[in-house]
Amino acid sequence: MSKKSFPFAERIFFCYFEKQKVVMTDFQVTILGNGSAVPTAYQNLSAQLVQYGHRRFLVDCGEGTQMQMIKYQVSRKNLSHIFISHLHGDHYFGLVGLVSTMHLFGREQPLHIYGPEPLEEIIQRQMDASDTRLKFPLVFHVLQKAGKIYSDNNLEISCFPLNHRIATFGFVFREKERERNLQKDFVRRYSPGVEQMHRIKQGADFLLPDGDVLRNEDITLDPPLSRSYAYCSDTLFDPDIVPFVRSVDLLYHEATFDDAMADIAAEKYHATARQAAQIAKAASVGELLLGHFSARFSDTAHLLEEARGVFKNTRKSGEGMTYKLSTR
Amino acid sequence: MSKKSFPFAERIFFCYFEKQKVVMTDFQVTILGNGSAVPTAYQNLSAQLVQYGHRRFLVDCGEGTQMQMIKYQVSRKNLSHIFISHLHGDHYFGLVGLVSTMHLFGREQPLHIYGPEPLEEIIQRQMDASDTRLKFPLVFHVLQKAGKIYSDNNLEISCFPLNHRIATFGFVFREKERERNLQKDFVRRYSPGVEQMHRIKQGADFLLPDGDVLRNEDITLDPPLSRSYAYCSDTLFDPDIVPFVRSVDLLYHEATFDDAMADIAAEKYHATARQAAQIAKAASVGELLLGHFSARFSDTAHLLEEARGVFKNTRKSGEGMTYKLSTR
Repeated sequence: MSKKSFPFAERIFFCYFEKQKVVMTDFQVTILGNGSAVPTAYQNLSAQLVQYGHRRFLVDCGEGTQMQMIKYQVSRKNLSHIFISHLHGDHYFGLVGLVSTMHLFGREQPLHIYGPEPLEEIIQRQMDASDTRLKFPLVFHVLQKAGKIYSDNNLEISCFPLNHRIATFGFVFREKERERNLQKDFVRRYSPGVEQMHRIKQGADFLLPDGDVLRNEDITLDPPLSRSYAYCSDTLFDPDIVPFVRSVDLLYHEATFDDAMADIAAEKYHATARQAAQIAKAASVGELLLGHFSARFSDTAHLLEEARGVFKNTRKSGEGMTYKLSTR
Repeated sequence: MSKKSFPFAERIFFCYFEKQKVVMTDFQVTILGNGSAVPTAYQNLSAQLVQYGHRRFLVDCGEGTQMQMIKYQVSRKNLSHIFISHLHGDHYFGLVGLVSTMHLFGREQPLHIYGPEPLEEIIQRQMDASDTRLKFPLVFHVLQKAGKIYSDNNLEISCFPLNHRIATFGFVFREKERERNLQKDFVRRYSPGVEQMHRIKQGADFLLPDGDVLRNEDITLDPPLSRSYAYCSDTLFDPDIVPFVRSVDLLYHEATFDDAMADIAAEKYHATARQAAQIAKAASVGELLLGHFSARFSDTAHLLEEARGVFKNTRKSGEGMTYKLSTR
């Protein structure tokens, strides 16, 4: 049995079909609120929806998040995991209302909530006060230290500590390395069995009946690069964050204040837009998305300018906007 | 010293000036939310602002109330008393956010909160979790039974039990009986002293230097009748409510369901629009204002029709609408 390449004609044939499109799973972030501390007429409190395929994850849940979900037509379906960065009210006061609404709409599937203590006690106390026995399991996961907190076939979610006045965590959503893609024309021509297909996706070659071998690289396509998203809010400017968010494709980082308020930012354990850009640059991220803007700025254009002076590939997050994750 | 009436000419003179306008203190209710249970695209959760002169009182505070206050330009200034009817989330989940916002804006004057237990514990637990030491005194008043809960020079507020699944209270805002109004022309002509004016306002006559007496009814005007407002949400249809709201000028009563859902209303300890009207009629109120509409009704016109079949002087409350209290 000799391991050899495709005959020349067949190589040409497959090369042509290397243009076969590899379908990327939708991986995107929708901003439901990007204001800080207090709501204003023009911005709502922290909350965002991360979608990976049909799965929905909520990151933070400030007061009014369920109203924002209605406004931006975000379904509660397939939303089974909520991540709360910390227990300042602008990041979680909307959680108990959202949980109540899920209950009133007859939810049955479990809801997993990740956050620092005593989040469970706070929610449970309010359920008890209204004599509510939830119709679905509420599963609390206490965040205490950096590490993996969620994993499925395609996605892994980790948390890491931020530097704020109280226990606060950032989150990284990282697409798992995916299997190689079979060339459709190879499949059509040789009809490999399920087991064989599985092995080829893992990198195996294919044995022809005549003993010849089709090399894996000739019958598969590279999977797309894994994509990753990181959320950092709220935090002091802190280079210790860099290793946790290194090379992510999209980094949402708080930019509560501008250059002129750097002292106040430090005092309040918040960051400026420029500092967010310094983290983005040091971590070599693909793109930086600014958010958690102070209520004092009705116009945040200067925050973008200040950040772009350090890291060009920066955008301001916009309420109701969706940002698709792409590889570089 | 003979007690006699004004000479004829003077009586004519004062009669003319009886047209003097008696200024009524503004007394009004602004609906910030009149939906029940869950927010929808078209209605927000229970909250309303009662204003008497410069004083503002908030009745219930569902999630998003502070956003509704921004939307309808309701200032937090002079808002020092909040009344929470009961601890179902749609009536108070916005309270902790509003308290936080007051703190962040540097409030210093005390805030009085009235509600059933364990409201204080719930709010305090959330303050502790965020390591927040409020800059202003938060004074909790536990509602346990019917009675007067607030009184100032002009207004008295009472609570009374409603019939709901958990401890729930209605509220009555009742203007105090006011002093008689001095006729301006009498004051101009006879320049009574401060003490004399005070006695005349209480009903005393006025002694002229020649020993004649001006009768109180000839030198004063009747004060306007006292106005009153009652809030009943949430409650089962319950005639026991009637004595507490008898003869109020305006009654806000929940009308969660329609006739077709009377069984469900009873099961859930709620009332139908028709039942609200039955209470209004039995209590001989001036006007009925329907609210706390089920999220299932995008159009509530039929609720108004059903209520008007029993009590004609009925209106549907509208979000952002202000209803002025008037005497009958």
